[in-house]
Amino acid sequence: MRHVLTLFDLTSKEIERIFAITEDLKTKFQQGIREPLFPGRVLALLFEKQSLRTRVSFETAMANLGGSSLFLGKDVGWGERESSADFGQVLGQYVDAVVVRSNSHAKVEELAKHCTCSIINGLTDTSHPCQALADLYTLRERHGTLAGLRLAYVGDANNVARSLAVACGKLDVEFAIAAPKRYQFDSNYRSKLKKELPKLKMIETTDPVEAVKGAAAVYTDVWASMGQEAEHKERVIAFKDYQVNATLMKHADPDACFLHCLPARRGEEVAAEVIDGPQSAIVQEAGNRLHAQKGLLAWLLGTQA
Amino acid sequence: MRHVLTLFDLTSKEIERIFAITEDLKTKFQQGIREPLFPGRVLALLFEKQSLRTRVSFETAMANLGGSSLFLGKDVGWGERESSADFGQVLGQYVDAVVVRSNSHAKVEELAKHCTCSIINGLTDTSHPCQALADLYTLRERHGTLAGLRLAYVGDANNVARSLAVACGKLDVEFAIAAPKRYQFDSNYRSKLKKELPKLKMIETTDPVEAVKGAAAVYTDVWASMGQEAEHKERVIAFKDYQVNATLMKHADPDACFLHCLPARRGEEVAAEVIDGPQSAIVQEAGNRLHAQKGLLAWLLGTQA
Amino acid sequence: MRHVLTLFDLTSKEIERIFAITEDLKTKFQQGIREPLFPGRVLALLFEKQSLRTRVSFETAMANLGGSSLFLGKDVGWGERESSADFGQVLGQYVDAVVVRSNSHAKVEELAKHCTCSIINGLTDTSHPCQALADLYTLRERHGTLAGLRLAYVGDANNVARSLAVACGKLDVEFAIAAPKRYQFDSNYRSKLKKELPKLKMIETTDPVEAVKGAAAVYTDVWASMGQEAEHKERVIAFKDYQVNATLMKHADPDACFLHCLPARRGEEVAAEVIDGPQSAIVQEAGNRLHAQKGLLAWLLGTQA
Repeated sequence: MRHVLTLFDLTSKEIERIFAITEDLKTKFQQGIREPLFPGRVLALLFEKQSLRTRVSFETAMANLGGSSLFLGKDVGWGERESSADFGQVLGQYVDAVVVRSNSHAKVEELAKHCTCSIINGLTDTSHPCQALADLYTLRERHGTLAGLRLAYVGDANNVARSLAVACGKLDVEFAIAAPKRYQFDSNYRSKLKKELPKLKMIETTDPVEAVKGAAAVYTDVWASMGQEAEHKERVIAFKDYQVNATLMKHADPDACFLHCLPARRGEEVAAEVIDGPQSAIVQEAGNRLHAQKGLLAWLLGTQA
Repeated sequence: MRHVLTLFDLTSKEIERIFAITEDLKTKFQQGIREPLFPGRVLALLFEKQSLRTRVSFETAMANLGGSSLFLGKDVGWGERESSADFGQVLGQYVDAVVVRSNSHAKVEELAKHCTCSIINGLTDTSHPCQALADLYTLRERHGTLAGLRLAYVGDANNVARSLAVACGKLDVEFAIAAPKRYQFDSNYRSKLKKELPKLKMIETTDPVEAVKGAAAVYTDVWASMGQEAEHKERVIAFKDYQVNATLMKHADPDACFLHCLPARRGEEVAAEVIDGPQSAIVQEAGNRLHAQKGLLAWLLGTQA
Repeated sequence: MRHVLTLFDLTSKEIERIFAITEDLKTKFQQGIREPLFPGRVLALLFEKQSLRTRVSFETAMANLGGSSLFLGKDVGWGERESSADFGQVLGQYVDAVVVRSNSHAKVEELAKHCTCSIINGLTDTSHPCQALADLYTLRERHGTLAGLRLAYVGDANNVARSLAVACGKLDVEFAIAAPKRYQFDSNYRSKLKKELPKLKMIETTDPVEAVKGAAAVYTDVWASMGQEAEHKERVIAFKDYQVNATLMKHADPDACFLHCLPARRGEEVAAEVIDGPQSAIVQEAGNRLHAQKGLLAWLLGTQA
């Protein structure tokens, strides 16, 4: 039984195995084939925060695989009506895996410590591994291979950026991030990346043009994430020179695609001309949430069987 | 891929085909047979308003057919956290069809424009096509045939009445509606009905007795629908002579049934003696929501396959 | 078609049959086998109160059996938007069974009167039969047999205690309950137990040591249940000598297990040394909610088929 709380929990080989399963299942999906690989299996979604993509893609993935899912919101009382220890032990008696979305990564780690079934991180304050899996899968799909490509991330070094850095390190993709100094990775995380991923090629810069140069994908996310609405004004000022627009895209590889985890704010972190233009891969990317998570689930549940 | 936003979207032949599928699946259901026609297929319910019948009948229909459903309430952020365009494109990557319940028909149309999977209207401010399908199916079930029958609707020319008028026009049923002048169809809708359904036999009157005369079914709905609670007092006065009671039922065909989309307010739009009496077909009618929607889903998903 | 509103609704033989099915299905579950016994069948959960165990175990049970479930919260309007009569009749047209959680047992009885499918009580103010089924199943699992054992319940004579008393009476287990006078069974319920279960061996005492003596299981529940938060202070005083701790456990059988329906408040009704110690069976007990309810569902749906 394995938890996936961050991408540090998976080896490069395991991610490649997940991508191979993803590819197979996606091909079948597009042919209208939904193999009932896991009949009677149950995935719980334990979500403390709003969600569209993560929720619908996980529930659909499980249904496509012949299993079921159940959605638990804030009202089930995790950490309030009862401790993570009691909660986790009980949940593990019932379901085959749990996707958790929480503001507190530490709370998810506490749950995982006590839960006898797999816990999958469906977004926390510090990590969004399933998003990064889908993102790198999208890049792989467009280029055939990942090795040696550059992914440029322009914006806040948030949970998405942190997971992308790990994914890039695991899959031999160069990770270039451009952000104002105070919105770059904190030194603890930078040290962790260096220690855990000695082969990671990372460029940190305050200059978006430098980051984007020759990139196969240009990625951005909203300047103020869920829960940071109060900082929105100040962040709009800090990031005003970091918009991904046609001018910036010109510095990337001519075949570069534009990626965004969505929802997006057109006119802020990205110009409409880019996100709604020919280089945008956001629909393919969002669609791959389904396929990559299906690959992850099939791998996790298959190993358990 | 087809959307069903109103019954104008379906031809008479298609409705008859849906009814034939409905009949087959209902017979099997009553024999305890639940054929897994659509394993691994997923229906999303996107509901901005309260629901019992629509929700439970759609979720059950999908489960009976071997598929799955997922219920999305207001908190998924459609039109708030992100635009209908982004929302619709993403949803279409995951699920096979979406039932939408919204106060705004225009918002549902906007979603349908961007969504690559079928959108089914599960009630809007202007239309309730699935209700009308079940209603006409109920009438067909009781009389063997529909052609030449009269359906009398006594009450507000609301979304239910609008969809019933279309259904009647498509299926050669005479539609008689009795309401105070200001609660009758607006002239735009009346023109649309005449233009789109030249063969529709429609009687609009302020006299319930005239409408009900010889009718095979007498239909009513609450005087103030969800969201019109503020107008309740004024509507109770306006409709005081429009109650469906035993006296009014005497003017209908002796075999006439009473129909109501529910929930009902006994003592207002309908007397208890009618809705709880021998002519009431409300339980059969509510049950047929399941069967007619199953017919619709099987038709929609079958055509896609 | 059968309702299970209290355990009075089941004979001893039927409970033993349910336990036999439970045992079979649990063995298969532990071997990774999920037999699709009820494909296309649907269980509705109609919950007016918070739930973790009951909800997840019922939804999972149904999924393991190849069926589906749908969760209806307070917003479906039962008893508000429409009467129990209309609500129950309609629901019965769609789903195969309904689990109800409500503050009002009378309201559930009213629903059952009008519903044409099985209603299962998933906790009311006066009864928690599914909990008691899982509890007695746990005891049976640990001891091989139930006959002649003593179950000691230390605490408020609440819904859980009431159902445990019936389960014990049906299965030849001695039921000893220790509580301050005013928190013991009311005289009506005591009379009902005596009348309906003439063979029930019941000891009611104010002395926890007397109740626990020789017991095979020591059971407790929170001093103030959901909805009694206002009485918490007063109940903490009333029950201060009723904590299940290591000292009290010494009076039970040396092999005795500790049971609790959860959530628990360590340091109030139970000491951490007991609930987190070697005699605690709370995880097995919570797990058996899934298995016992699966047994109940298989029995109910199997009889219908």
